[in-house]
Amino acid sequence: MTTRREFIYGAGASILGAGLVARSALAALPESPSTDLATMQPPSEPSQGRHYHPVVTLNGWSLPWRMNNGWKEYHLTAEPVEREFAPGMTARLWGYNGQSPGPTIECVEGDKVRIFVTNRLPEHTTIHWHGILLPSGMDGVGGLTQPHIPPGKTYVYEFEAKHSGTFMYHPHADEMVQMAMGMMGFFVVHPRDPEFMKVDRDFCFLMSAYDIEPGTMTPRVNTMLDFNLWTWNSRVFPGIDHLVCREGDRVRVRMGNLTMTNHPIHVHGLTFEVAGTDGGWVRKEARWPEVTVDIAIGQMRAIEFDAVPAGDWAMHCHKSHHTMNAMGHDVPNMIGVDQRPVAESLRKLLPGYMVMGERGMADMGEMVMPLPENTLPMMTGTGPFGPIEMGGMFTVLKIRKDQRPGDYTDPGWYNHPPGTVCFEYTSA
Amino acid sequence: MTTRREFIYGAGASILGAGLVARSALAALPESPSTDLATMQPPSEPSQGRHYHPVVTLNGWSLPWRMNNGWKEYHLTAEPVEREFAPGMTARLWGYNGQSPGPTIECVEGDKVRIFVTNRLPEHTTIHWHGILLPSGMDGVGGLTQPHIPPGKTYVYEFEAKHSGTFMYHPHADEMVQMAMGMMGFFVVHPRDPEFMKVDRDFCFLMSAYDIEPGTMTPRVNTMLDFNLWTWNSRVFPGIDHLVCREGDRVRVRMGNLTMTNHPIHVHGLTFEVAGTDGGWVRKEARWPEVTVDIAIGQMRAIEFDAVPAGDWAMHCHKSHHTMNAMGHDVPNMIGVDQRPVAESLRKLLPGYMVMGERGMADMGEMVMPLPENTLPMMTGTGPFGPIEMGGMFTVLKIRKDQRPGDYTDPGWYNHPPGTVCFEYTSA
Amino acid sequence: MTTRREFIYGAGASILGAGLVARSALAALPESPSTDLATMQPPSEPSQGRHYHPVVTLNGWSLPWRMNNGWKEYHLTAEPVEREFAPGMTARLWGYNGQSPGPTIECVEGDKVRIFVTNRLPEHTTIHWHGILLPSGMDGVGGLTQPHIPPGKTYVYEFEAKHSGTFMYHPHADEMVQMAMGMMGFFVVHPRDPEFMKVDRDFCFLMSAYDIEPGTMTPRVNTMLDFNLWTWNSRVFPGIDHLVCREGDRVRVRMGNLTMTNHPIHVHGLTFEVAGTDGGWVRKEARWPEVTVDIAIGQMRAIEFDAVPAGDWAMHCHKSHHTMNAMGHDVPNMIGVDQRPVAESLRKLLPGYMVMGERGMADMGEMVMPLPENTLPMMTGTGPFGPIEMGGMFTVLKIRKDQRPGDYTDPGWYNHPPGTVCFEYTSA
Repeated sequence: MTTRREFIYGAGASILGAGLVARSALAALPESPSTDLATMQPPSEPSQGRHYHPVVTLNGWSLPWRMNNGWKEYHLTAEPVEREFAPGMTARLWGYNGQSPGPTIECVEGDKVRIFVTNRLPEHTTIHWHGILLPSGMDGVGGLTQPHIPPGKTYVYEFEAKHSGTFMYHPHADEMVQMAMGMMGFFVVHPRDPEFMKVDRDFCFLMSAYDIEPGTMTPRVNTMLDFNLWTWNSRVFPGIDHLVCREGDRVRVRMGNLTMTNHPIHVHGLTFEVAGTDGGWVRKEARWPEVTVDIAIGQMRAIEFDAVPAGDWAMHCHKSHHTMNAMGHDVPNMIGVDQRPVAESLRKLLPGYMVMGERGMADMGEMVMPLPENTLPMMTGTGPFGPIEMGGMFTVLKIRKDQRPGDYTDPGWYNHPPGTVCFEYTSA
Repeated sequence: MTTRREFIYGAGASILGAGLVARSALAALPESPSTDLATMQPPSEPSQGRHYHPVVTLNGWSLPWRMNNGWKEYHLTAEPVEREFAPGMTARLWGYNGQSPGPTIECVEGDKVRIFVTNRLPEHTTIHWHGILLPSGMDGVGGLTQPHIPPGKTYVYEFEAKHSGTFMYHPHADEMVQMAMGMMGFFVVHPRDPEFMKVDRDFCFLMSAYDIEPGTMTPRVNTMLDFNLWTWNSRVFPGIDHLVCREGDRVRVRMGNLTMTNHPIHVHGLTFEVAGTDGGWVRKEARWPEVTVDIAIGQMRAIEFDAVPAGDWAMHCHKSHHTMNAMGHDVPNMIGVDQRPVAESLRKLLPGYMVMGERGMADMGEMVMPLPENTLPMMTGTGPFGPIEMGGMFTVLKIRKDQRPGDYTDPGWYNHPPGTVCFEYTSA
Repeated sequence: MTTRREFIYGAGASILGAGLVARSALAALPESPSTDLATMQPPSEPSQGRHYHPVVTLNGWSLPWRMNNGWKEYHLTAEPVEREFAPGMTARLWGYNGQSPGPTIECVEGDKVRIFVTNRLPEHTTIHWHGILLPSGMDGVGGLTQPHIPPGKTYVYEFEAKHSGTFMYHPHADEMVQMAMGMMGFFVVHPRDPEFMKVDRDFCFLMSAYDIEPGTMTPRVNTMLDFNLWTWNSRVFPGIDHLVCREGDRVRVRMGNLTMTNHPIHVHGLTFEVAGTDGGWVRKEARWPEVTVDIAIGQMRAIEFDAVPAGDWAMHCHKSHHTMNAMGHDVPNMIGVDQRPVAESLRKLLPGYMVMGERGMADMGEMVMPLPENTLPMMTGTGPFGPIEMGGMFTVLKIRKDQRPGDYTDPGWYNHPPGTVCFEYTSA
């Protein structure tokens, strides 16, 4: 039934510009679509194959596939990319199909999946399908379960998606470097029964961290702890999509961590449960309510909640230096120190010099001190009531009464109803 | 019934020394009691309102409230404070009502709560009521759900306490700085039914970390990882209250983490279960036994256990550098290196110079080398059998047969009964 | 029945070379066997006492004991040791009975256990029996529950093993130093009923971290975060034993963490559950499937899984800098930078100078640049398909159809069956 033959896909001219193999072989390769936009692609119901409810990738998209004789075929291209972290700052990363992270792969439990991986990086790579149950030879560990994929070559992974859940893909070759450069993507296997664990909205994102010197564009790849840009899908506040929900919706948020430290993800306004991991689904008796879930490296968590009440609810990592953007942290504490005499002297030498931190650092949320090129303010963002003073891993969960089902359009800021307006109080 | 009008409380002369609003408005403000003592206030049963079993705040106290037409009214004042970390070391922090952390707020499920927050800091602030379910406009995220509270002004938060549990309050404005300066407090909502989840002793504390250069008093506020003082309720060993229990008591310890890293809290002598989080209570089928619970940042854990057997049981963070106080960590390993010739030369130049670490560092538990002003030894504390060689997040759970119910008086060290005395053995 | 008398074991000539006590006292001491080999000792069923299924300690062994009038007697000797981390690199540590970690102690629920601890270190020590329920005076916290054990003396711990589970032992004296030097060991209490929680293979190891400057042998003991050697039982890849299993076996892996940070342990190819902690066993309703378990410091986790399917499955900490060995991490990112002109100049000055990282760092998996003495490559190891490019906390779970029950012999690399060979694909 399935004839197999030894094969290394060359980098074909029409796709990769290198032309190492015959056109007849290339004909078998599915398209490898690419984009460098950082805008959320609306979820689209599958037009063929088993039915499923698609996920929404924050600031991202899902990879199209084609059916080929009973197999779903996808094509990932590992390559250098540029990614806008937020308006005003772009990084030079490595990713897939024009982006870091790569596009989300979606399939259905029981699907036979074939993924072509073309390497357009300057060094070898592999892909490990984290959490997916598959044969040892498809596991993607360079040297251990397969030869590395050399630059210019295409490799083919084939497996049946045996169980539904929340997974990811990333290299298992020169791993610290390739992940520090942004190589990763989400992988969702939907349940065979579309009613199983059905939710109204199903968001997903991966966490990655970068060490990019202010004023530069390329991450340092040997950093172990002192990262300065903490991202969701390689985006930072205020560049991260809002999670828009209709009041009463059942909502799932799937998150995976490929940084170098834990991220305690905190949601305001409601409680949630961990309903799934990269190992599978969590039975109901084993769950408990949380407002902060700690996600370790190499872990994925699918949290679920009922979207009530309406409002603008902060959602962020609770490590406060992860909700800030890159800037020097070696500043001494000037609280209580009158810097005016020094500042006067400095201003003569450095026009524009600002006194920082004498009364705390809240001023920085609105600061206008010139920044290096391609650098975001440490604390930034503006809400309906003034500066939000955040950065990094921070966004807003927007729950609205009048949002339509399936509508992810940002509704703007929440209009506080009478009775919760801030500067009122109930007189005695 | 509840007339509302726009209102900004000014900083009144009698309370705040600024006198910006009319005395008639100030008359509506409840008292904002203050203390700079670091001694545990015994729990007192509520004299009015719904009955509850109060918590005990380590080295702290609970904020008094008044009833006003069906609302419980509290008054927090954000302000610079001085906090003794342990005898011999005091820090200049920011806190509430004379202390860091601020006083514990206690109320009962179903209570209508009104909290006045006066800002006496040099910069704006807000308060976020972490874990509490409330309207979006009361959530305290500066810029997003409310304007920041400027210095000198008072803001009013109002909400109904919808569910019982273990919560906290902290700023959501210039967050890294304000939390690095110690701004936080505990918030307990007791169940409506005082028999629900009832325990005999109910302790609580918050974890915070500071980076205070030995010899100075003010934390660096930009530190991300390299803190040197790891505290429970802004106290370090041997300044942290002991947890005194009667043998057989059902005991709850509620802990919250607002540092920059996880704290694995270890209890000797018994096993416990996590019975609650800041999301609510954990059902019994979902619990399992532990001796160490890892508490992530922005997480709270209420652990419960039966206090057996009698004894002195260490309770501490299991990161060994979190059970030490501030000192240089850049010391090379001198183990096995004979330093005497060098030490002789150095002593001529620096009388009093000590050889450190040649045989390990246990000597430091008793060291008498002069320390900088306002600095604690790295390893300190003395028990019934000699130096304990700890610091930071370490205290003792003291379980006694003859402790009376509700008595938190420190009983002194445990008197080992015959049969457990150390230097005996059973002869063959 | 049990007469007790005050007793300090002296360091006897025949055992310790110091001869401070009478031979009659020494006669009571059990042997303190010692080894400096880092090879796995096959598990041996107990020949006396209650029956149990022994654990297998990676690169280690279990401490023999003798029965003495109803007590199981063990003898640990704390002392300086040398430990090979992997071929080519040996460290000077402190450990027990010739090794770091010390030998695993095994006993059975209900056993009366007596452990003699002889101190041959240059400073005092104690042993805390982490997780074990025992009298306060046996808990091993220096200063608090016992006097420290001075150099040259022997101390006796006695307790009944009240509950089965996964525990460890380590000093509670000069704790940061003594653990940074490698003092720790595993302690397993088997269930009284050998059929309870029975598995086919039961592995165990402890995680420890060291900061050893390349070219040297002794760890820095004051390091808080920046460790460079992340070990399982003081071994690093490729020096860590493989976990060899027969397909279909029920397998338990017990892990404990005594480093300074969390370790998210990831297993490829299958899902597992956490079946036990250092607090006891986890009931079935409370478990859920995982592929990565985050183990906090001072925590132990016993995970269980069915060993399917056959293959070579990577098992490692998911922090990518924990799967590398010691090397400088301050290297700037050279990706995209043409270093040839500089390299040419440098080669004139430094023959053998290599260009690193211009196209990523995968080349380092095979690099032949000279390393300092006693230093492992940062990325190393070779599998059936080429360089594995790992280090530190990485090993392979080898599941084989034809492995015999109880056979831990390494079967070599997995022979991929037809149908999973890498460079084939199913033609349309």
